[in-house]
Amino acid sequence: VSAPSTDPVTEAERLARVALSCAVEPGDGTTSSLIRQIGAVATFRQSLVPKPDSGLAQRLDEVEPERQLEQAARCGIRFVVPGDAEWPPGVDDLDHALADGGFGGTPPGLWVKGPRSLTELATSVAVVGSRTASVYGVEMTRALCGHLASARVPVVSGGARGIDFEAHDATLRADGVTVAVLACGVDRVYPAQNRDLLRHLAAEFVVVSEQPPGSAPTRPRFLARNRLIAALTRGTVLVEAALRSGALNTAGWAEQLSRQVMCVPGPVTSYTSKGVNNWLRQGRGTVVTHGSEVLELVGESGEHLVVEPRGEVRPRDSLTRTEQQVLEWVPVSSPAAVDSIARLCLVHIRETEGALRRLEGKGFVRLGDGGWRLAPDV
Amino acid sequence: VSAPSTDPVTEAERLARVALSCAVEPGDGTTSSLIRQIGAVATFRQSLVPKPDSGLAQRLDEVEPERQLEQAARCGIRFVVPGDAEWPPGVDDLDHALADGGFGGTPPGLWVKGPRSLTELATSVAVVGSRTASVYGVEMTRALCGHLASARVPVVSGGARGIDFEAHDATLRADGVTVAVLACGVDRVYPAQNRDLLRHLAAEFVVVSEQPPGSAPTRPRFLARNRLIAALTRGTVLVEAALRSGALNTAGWAEQLSRQVMCVPGPVTSYTSKGVNNWLRQGRGTVVTHGSEVLELVGESGEHLVVEPRGEVRPRDSLTRTEQQVLEWVPVSSPAAVDSIARLCLVHIRETEGALRRLEGKGFVRLGDGGWRLAPDV
Repeated sequence: VSAPSTDPVTEAERLARVALSCAVEPGDGTTSSLIRQIGAVATFRQSLVPKPDSGLAQRLDEVEPERQLEQAARCGIRFVVPGDAEWPPGVDDLDHALADGGFGGTPPGLWVKGPRSLTELATSVAVVGSRTASVYGVEMTRALCGHLASARVPVVSGGARGIDFEAHDATLRADGVTVAVLACGVDRVYPAQNRDLLRHLAAEFVVVSEQPPGSAPTRPRFLARNRLIAALTRGTVLVEAALRSGALNTAGWAEQLSRQVMCVPGPVTSYTSKGVNNWLRQGRGTVVTHGSEVLELVGESGEHLVVEPRGEVRPRDSLTRTEQQVLEWVPVSSPAAVDSIARLCLVHIRETEGALRRLEGKGFVRLGDGGWRLAPDV
Repeated sequence: VSAPSTDPVTEAERLARVALSCAVEPGDGTTSSLIRQIGAVATFRQSLVPKPDSGLAQRLDEVEPERQLEQAARCGIRFVVPGDAEWPPGVDDLDHALADGGFGGTPPGLWVKGPRSLTELATSVAVVGSRTASVYGVEMTRALCGHLASARVPVVSGGARGIDFEAHDATLRADGVTVAVLACGVDRVYPAQNRDLLRHLAAEFVVVSEQPPGSAPTRPRFLARNRLIAALTRGTVLVEAALRSGALNTAGWAEQLSRQVMCVPGPVTSYTSKGVNNWLRQGRGTVVTHGSEVLELVGESGEHLVVEPRGEVRPRDSLTRTEQQVLEWVPVSSPAAVDSIARLCLVHIRETEGALRRLEGKGFVRLGDGGWRLAPDV
């Protein structure tokens, strides 16, 4: 898929990045910025010098990068690095996104399994949310992803239970492109109940991780994975999230990376909408209620304009100007005489009477004892 | 209730305002700005000159202001004008708030029925919404108004069916102060099914209108009434509103008057939340999910600070720092040996093992074939 003929990445660079990818924990901002400053090869060499309180030198020494690459290739896994045609440029934005304690940074490379290219993610959107999704969350996720799929916008998510699963699944069922970013190696399946989904994505689409094959998922790796989801996409849709949901972490990365943060509001009384509503309350996201609104926010300028929702057209809208003017001043409760209505609406009394008769025919007003009044429910 | 002894309003001024109040339709911005520029007496005199396309001179000529005031007083209705101690200063902000076609402006005076003073509204909040409220909307309205009542914040609404009714009723049941602003005369009851409520408010609290007694409600009068609700309060809470709901009109006035616009988000799939969610989408309001958040927004600086919602405390939060550090690196799926965990978490292997044992006792991790892994659901 990538274009090795024009590949500017040297063999030494690629192997240094493999070694660093295997030995450095994801989210190690110090190593990331060293790579940026002095390059991967020099970073590798410098990191081979043992330091107190760090097992990095020892771990680096144990890695056999050529063997890692070969083993991965045998499993259909490639290692994509900056400079490769397939490298997603958005990931470089992570150079400047660090969380507390220096956590973050651009990974040395990405382990990728599957026939599609990461270049397809240039227009993608992340759809994330709680693992314990409500019926409302499932419904909204499926509707949004169905719409994104029909617009050929790839959907990125984390392959987890709940909203993540629904996002991948709904996109697949709408013939869309969807990619899972994992906290474990791309050859592993986590969670087990999503085995079929993850196998299918790896076989037909793409599964991505900054962890080398074989790695187990741990909490810090989930947090590091979230930053990749944000960096790979144009924006993150937060469908449902409790107050301490990991999906808020992804939204936080999207915010830090100046990506769109899009929030699906939910009932204040729903546990799984509390995190989303709170995010909106803090002014940290834009409300989205439909896939078209997501497209408008992540598309090119003017690409996906949304028609402002206007409510249904009412029978009243089709009246003439005079009829509307007269109707405005017909009382809703006790009746009024023609002359009193005419005086208020500044229309001649004969015209007013004519308009009232037509309005009566259309069911808007009624003539009773004491004059004209609105028909019920007008 | 007002303080006539220090009343700077002359008899001529008051009578001119009565006449203008009876003859000019609400929301007549031209007359309002004339009153502001040359005073009510001069405006009255100038308006007595007949003009083409305007019945104002004739209507003014027909008004008998002394008789109007006497009749009103016999029904327990007073006429409050700028300069009276009871005049709510916020209403003057309407001088500078005009909608399309010059609709708006400060009314010549307010017709008031009930024993409470309008001065109490200085700290009030408007709670408005659809006439066709959902169970969710009713529930949210009652919870919010109950909280406002317990904080002694008066609740202003429009006396209509649905959210308005619930707002008044819930405030009353929580021993709070609530005021209805009507589109018809304060001696009238509209809608009929709210008769008991409106009678009670007029007897025990206050009912307000810029319409003279006896006036029928018309559509333009409802729109004019909405601007008064916004002007009388520190902010407007939009609980539920369809896309063309009149409650959005009230929110629009609040926005124009630089009052807080507070929105209760709701399910995207709910008809009666579409208007509110759309308002939030446009960035025109702040999310509120609880009465305390309303108080924070409308109170004096620092008066009602809200504790940021933090989610429930988890068992994990009570672990020691080392235990937390070790726990972070225990794999969620396949097990890992102590030395591999120790290497990742940068804790000495003996300390790591001790922490793992304690974590096992607390149910966080399990030791099985191949090493340690997280317990399910940690």
